Amino acid sequence: MSDFSRLSLNSATTKYWTLEQVIDGCVRTGIPAIGPWRDRVAEVGTERAAKLISNAGLRVSSLCRGGFLTASDQEGREAAVQDNRAAILEAEILGTGELFLVVGGLPAGDRDIVAARQRVADRLGELVPFATEHGVRLVLEPLHPMYAADRALLSTLGQALDLAAPYPAAAVGVAVDTFHVWWDPQLREQIARAGRENRIASYQVCDFNMPIAADALLSRGIMGDGVIDFATITGWVADAGYTGDIEVEIFNQQIWDNPGDELLETIKNRYASLVLPWAKR
Amino acid sequence: MSDFSRLSLNSATTKYWTLEQVIDGCVRTGIPAIGPWRDRVAEVGTERAAKLISNAGLRVSSLCRGGFLTASDQEGREAAVQDNRAAILEAEILGTGELFLVVGGLPAGDRDIVAARQRVADRLGELVPFATEHGVRLVLEPLHPMYAADRALLSTLGQALDLAAPYPAAAVGVAVDTFHVWWDPQLREQIARAGRENRIASYQVCDFNMPIAADALLSRGIMGDGVIDFATITGWVADAGYTGDIEVEIFNQQIWDNPGDELLETIKNRYASLVLPWAKR
Repeated sequence: MSDFSRLSLNSATTKYWTLEQVIDGCVRTGIPAIGPWRDRVAEVGTERAAKLISNAGLRVSSLCRGGFLTASDQEGREAAVQDNRAAILEAEILGTGELFLVVGGLPAGDRDIVAARQRVADRLGELVPFATEHGVRLVLEPLHPMYAADRALLSTLGQALDLAAPYPAAAVGVAVDTFHVWWDPQLREQIARAGRENRIASYQVCDFNMPIAADALLSRGIMGDGVIDFATITGWVADAGYTGDIEVEIFNQQIWDNPGDELLETIKNRYASLVLPWAKR
Repeated sequence: MSDFSRLSLNSATTKYWTLEQVIDGCVRTGIPAIGPWRDRVAEVGTERAAKLISNAGLRVSSLCRGGFLTASDQEGREAAVQDNRAAILEAEILGTGELFLVVGGLPAGDRDIVAARQRVADRLGELVPFATEHGVRLVLEPLHPMYAADRALLSTLGQALDLAAPYPAAAVGVAVDTFHVWWDPQLREQIARAGRENRIASYQVCDFNMPIAADALLSRGIMGDGVIDFATITGWVADAGYTGDIEVEIFNQQIWDNPGDELLETIKNRYASLVLPWAKR
């Protein structure tokens, strides 16, 4: 019997399910944790979402997501800080200490990536005290470089750790999402570094499907369907001392079109065969 | 009057043109150099290609491409070495010292990226003496990480420089292709390092168009059409001491469907306004 105690279902995997449906699906199939997206939480209200999840006996592994910190105009900067403060409060109410940040890409028509990255660092600095006060860690998620222009100018784990460096590990962490980082030649050493610095806040597993989908955002696959060596990367994460939740977050139109217990069972099976054996050292 | 003496047209930009058509187009529009692909050279034969280009008063800036070094079986490994030896001889005959290598991705069904990268290093070591003997530099081209699985497990300039490190700078160089590296948080320092190590063998300019094309290979755009800051990157390349050819290599179905002098003039204009002013320090 496999141990699913660290498995978490990110709500984006069953995109068209309401929060209640995600909760019911996890309860039916024995998945003990949920990583909800804010839109699904907002539909029922944060307080009620927290109650529904906790009453079902489930945990919240993380909240997706804040971020989008690259606006250069005063109004955009203030709106980003406001929205992220709201996300921090939502995470606190949901009882998760981990708030994912997707830092944002280049503003429309702006090509100055160096300056945009500096704005991310500046906004992060503004958010840290508020997050710390509320017991929420800001989790920097490096995204695959193919999303650098429109989603995240944060592209590698090393870069995320550099960005986190000025702050305590309890205030700013990093996410390791296999889809985003599998290609990185520095992956092994940067995962080890993240472990040494106590910054691994989340491990997300999801395959990189080939060929890349026509909508590049939707190339995420169930573990085993793509090119990623989960044994190796999971082993590196385990060696780094990570013992937390392992979230499955998949954006894939075919998967979205067929949510259901069969999908969740497939995820459990792939997790049990491709991830779990290497998740503990 | 802009100085086009460093501008080179990579033959992939006018994909459906024969080598003769590329030569004629360059002569008509005053582009002094060509970076041919091997298939267009093979159509006329290497010796004759060399004569046609030189008789037209043009230079060869580089040859595209050798590589694909990741095969794990004996037959595949030997075939790769043979093919690359042939490419080295072709480069020598064409009179260019720079042979691009696209190192290859994961073999079908193979997920061990660490072992595949070691095979690239091993094959490179086997090729260096032959290349050196023929006065041809092997040019490692890091490709955008979205091509890691199927085209190149070499994804960053830093990784390319590490791979080149055991060999003299005259034997193994690196390419800086803006499309592939613009997102890299270490780009500035790695370009500077490449300069210090005398390894910059080619600077290719090409924009990163958004959204990514349905066929991810075809997202390359004319400078100015995408998200890349050519002034900044070109300045870094100039600061690194690079004074060689600047090749325009674009894979883009719309551009391929409309080759012609108008396209070449557009390339010249964009080069003159977006690249050239920063190409010399």
